[in-house]
Amino acid sequence: MAIIIHKYGGTSMGSVERIQNVAKRVAKWMRAGHQVVVVPSAMSGETNRLLDLAKEIHPTPNPRELDQIASTGEQVSSGLLALALHREGIDAVSYAGWQVTIHTDSAFTKARIMGIEDEKIRADLNLGKAVVITGFQGVDPNGNITTLGRGGSDTSAVAVAAALKAEECLIYTDVDGVYTTDPRVCEDARRLDKITFEEMLEMASLGSKVLQIRSVEFAGKYQVKTRVLSSLTDPLIALEQEMKSGTLITFEEDSTMEAAVISGIAFARDEAKITVLSVPDRPGIAYQILGPIADANIDVDMIIQNQSVDGKTDFTFTVPRADYQKAFDLLKNSVQAHIGAKDILGDPKVSKVSVVGVGMRSHVGVASKMFRTLSEEGINILMISTSEIKISVVVDEKYMELAVRALHKSFELDQR
Amino acid sequence: MAIIIHKYGGTSMGSVERIQNVAKRVAKWMRAGHQVVVVPSAMSGETNRLLDLAKEIHPTPNPRELDQIASTGEQVSSGLLALALHREGIDAVSYAGWQVTIHTDSAFTKARIMGIEDEKIRADLNLGKAVVITGFQGVDPNGNITTLGRGGSDTSAVAVAAALKAEECLIYTDVDGVYTTDPRVCEDARRLDKITFEEMLEMASLGSKVLQIRSVEFAGKYQVKTRVLSSLTDPLIALEQEMKSGTLITFEEDSTMEAAVISGIAFARDEAKITVLSVPDRPGIAYQILGPIADANIDVDMIIQNQSVDGKTDFTFTVPRADYQKAFDLLKNSVQAHIGAKDILGDPKVSKVSVVGVGMRSHVGVASKMFRTLSEEGINILMISTSEIKISVVVDEKYMELAVRALHKSFELDQR
Repeated sequence: MAIIIHKYGGTSMGSVERIQNVAKRVAKWMRAGHQVVVVPSAMSGETNRLLDLAKEIHPTPNPRELDQIASTGEQVSSGLLALALHREGIDAVSYAGWQVTIHTDSAFTKARIMGIEDEKIRADLNLGKAVVITGFQGVDPNGNITTLGRGGSDTSAVAVAAALKAEECLIYTDVDGVYTTDPRVCEDARRLDKITFEEMLEMASLGSKVLQIRSVEFAGKYQVKTRVLSSLTDPLIALEQEMKSGTLITFEEDSTMEAAVISGIAFARDEAKITVLSVPDRPGIAYQILGPIADANIDVDMIIQNQSVDGKTDFTFTVPRADYQKAFDLLKNSVQAHIGAKDILGDPKVSKVSVVGVGMRSHVGVASKMFRTLSEEGINILMISTSEIKISVVVDEKYMELAVRALHKSFELDQR
Repeated sequence: MAIIIHKYGGTSMGSVERIQNVAKRVAKWMRAGHQVVVVPSAMSGETNRLLDLAKEIHPTPNPRELDQIASTGEQVSSGLLALALHREGIDAVSYAGWQVTIHTDSAFTKARIMGIEDEKIRADLNLGKAVVITGFQGVDPNGNITTLGRGGSDTSAVAVAAALKAEECLIYTDVDGVYTTDPRVCEDARRLDKITFEEMLEMASLGSKVLQIRSVEFAGKYQVKTRVLSSLTDPLIALEQEMKSGTLITFEEDSTMEAAVISGIAFARDEAKITVLSVPDRPGIAYQILGPIADANIDVDMIIQNQSVDGKTDFTFTVPRADYQKAFDLLKNSVQAHIGAKDILGDPKVSKVSVVGVGMRSHVGVASKMFRTLSEEGINILMISTSEIKISVVVDEKYMELAVRALHKSFELDQR
C-alpha cells in the first residue's frame, strides 16, 4: 500500500463523462489497495471564462480579486469529482487549498507554495478515503486566496506528493508522455520511457509544454518520482500496464540512459529577435537596455553580447513574438538615444531549436554535429546559446520544422 | 456617516452591465459618506448550473460537496463586484464566508448562522473600503463550507447588519417593495411604505416571496431595520429619494399604521389538501399520520383536526401540490390500514388565501368580514386557520384570484 498522487488536467475534467472516467480510474487504484490523493484542474474553459468575465469588468483587474474568482474553477471540479467517486462506491472528500492548508506567499496570480499541512490528508487516507485537493491554489499568511499561475495544478500535485512523501505522482494529461520532439512537426518522434528532471526542465522551458516548469523544479528539489501519462486510455486498463506507461521523470542518469546523448529536440516557434547596434561597451549597459523591457513585463529569453570592438558592441536578445513590437518601440523611442546606440534592428519571425540531453555532459562533438546537420540543410544560424545539457540556436522561422526533423534524424532519436 | 448594508439578488448581479450598475449605486452611497458592506448573490442561473452539474454526476449528491460546489457562485460574483467598484474608483475587497468569518452550524445546504466576526470588516470600513461579502454561505466549526439554502443571501445580509449594528439593511431586488398583494393577480395592489416584521413573516411564509423567511426572523430578533427596494432604478437616483423608496420593515406599530387593520392579502396557489377520514381519536394519531409525511421530506402547512364524534375524527392537512401524489400514496398504502382510518380523500387543486395585519389584534370582525366577502362572491371555504395577525382560508384553486381581488377591495387596500 502506497500513497499515490493523481493529477488531472482541464481536458481530463472537461465534461461530466470525463469526470466519471477519472473517478473510475481513481477507484481502480483505490481497490488495488493504494491510498490516493487527486489534484484536479478546473473543467477546461472554466478558468478562461472566469478571467474573461473579470477583464470585461476591469481591464487591469486587481490580482487578489482575480484569484478569489479564478480559484473557484478547481473548487467546483474537485467537488464534482468527489461526487463521482461516491458514485463509484468510494468514500471521498474534497478540500480547497485553504482547507488543506496549502500555504503560499502573497504573490497573487503567481504565488509560490511555502508549505502543505498533511495532517488532515493523512487522517482521511487512513480512514480509507480518497482525498481530492483543488489544484492551482493556496492561501497566503493573511487568509487571502492565491493562485499559482497557469499550469499551477501540476505544481500543486508535485508539492502534495512531496509533503506526503508519496510513492509516485501521476500527471494525467491529454498526451501519453514526453516525446523526443513534437510529433506534429516530426512524425518519427518517439515517446521517452524516462527522462531526467534536468532534461525535462530544459524541454519544458523550451516549449514542450507537457508540465509546468515549476512543477518540474519542485519534483527535482524534493525528488518526487513524477510520471506523465495519458488520461485518454480506458480508465480500467490493467494497473501494471498503466504503471509502465507514459514518461517517468527520474533523478539518476541510470545505465539505460548512457547510450542516448540527446533525449529530445525542443523548439519555440513564435520568437522574435532584437539587436541593439553598436552600443558603448560600458558597465550597466545591459541593464539600461533590458531594464525597460522587464519593466514592461516582457520576457526576455536568449541574450547575446559579443566581444566589443573599438569599445562598441552589438547586443541581441529574443522576446516572445507577441511582445516584439512593444519591445522594439520601447528601445527605439526611449532607449536608443539615451544609451547612444547606432540603431535598433529586429526580426519578428525567428524560432528557437534546441537539442537537450544529459548525455551531452560526457560526450564531445554534440555542438559540431548539430551545426553540421543544419549546415547540410542550408539553414543559417542566427544566434547560439548553450547550457550544460542543451544547445539552442535561433533560425529563420521558415526553417524551423526542417531543422527539427533533420536534428531528430541525425541524433538518431527515431531509433531505439 | 453610518454603516449601511446592501444586498443584491441574482438578477441584479445577472450580467457584467448589471454588476457595473450595482457598483455605481454602491459608489454613490460611499461618496455620500456612508460605510457600505455589500452582500451579493451569485449571478442568476449560476447556482442552478452548478447544482445541475452535481446532480448529473450523482442523483443524491453528498450535501457537504454540494456546498463546496454551490458556494463558488457567490465567490465569483463578489470578486467581480469588487473589480467593478475599483473601476468606479472605490477601494474594495471581497471575502468568502470563511474569510470573514461567518460561522454556521454543520447543517449542509441549510445551515444556520451562529456568529459573524466583525473585526476584519470594521478595519476595512475604517480604511475607507467597500467590503463585499459572499452571501448564502459560511463555514462550520470543522472548516467545511456551508450554504444557507435558497435565498440565504438575504439572511447573510441581515446577519451582517446585526453584527455591525448597521443603520439599515437595504435588500435590492427586482421588485420595488412589498405589495398589499401580487399585482399580477390584483391590479389595484399597492406598494406598502412600511410593514411590521411580524406581518412580513406572515406575508413571506404565505407566498409573497420577496424575502427569505429566515432573514425576516433574523431582522426581527436583532431589530435590523431592513428595506426592500428596487435595483432596477437608475443607480444614480438621488440618495434622499432612494432612502424613501421600497418598503421598510419596522418593529413598532407606529401611529400611521393604526388606521390599517389589514396590510395585505397573501396567497399560495399550488396547494393540495388531504383528509384522513374517520380515524380513532387517540393520542399519537397525528404523529402516526404526519410522521411518515415528514420522513418523506414533504412540508405540511395547514393542519386541521375537528372535534371528534363517537371517538372518531377527520384529520385534514395541506401540502405543496408537487408533493401531493407522493403524500397521498404514502397514506393510502402505508398508513390507512395501520391506524384504522376509513378512507383517504384528497384534492390536488386548492389554494390558500390569507389576510394579514397587526391591526387585526385590536379590531374584531376581520374574520367575519373576510367570510362575508367570500360568501358574497359565492366562494366556498374548504379550510380555515387563524393566527394572531392572519386568517387563512383554503378555497378551490379556480376561485383564488377572485378571492384575492374581492378581499383586497373589501379591506380597502387599494386606498390610502
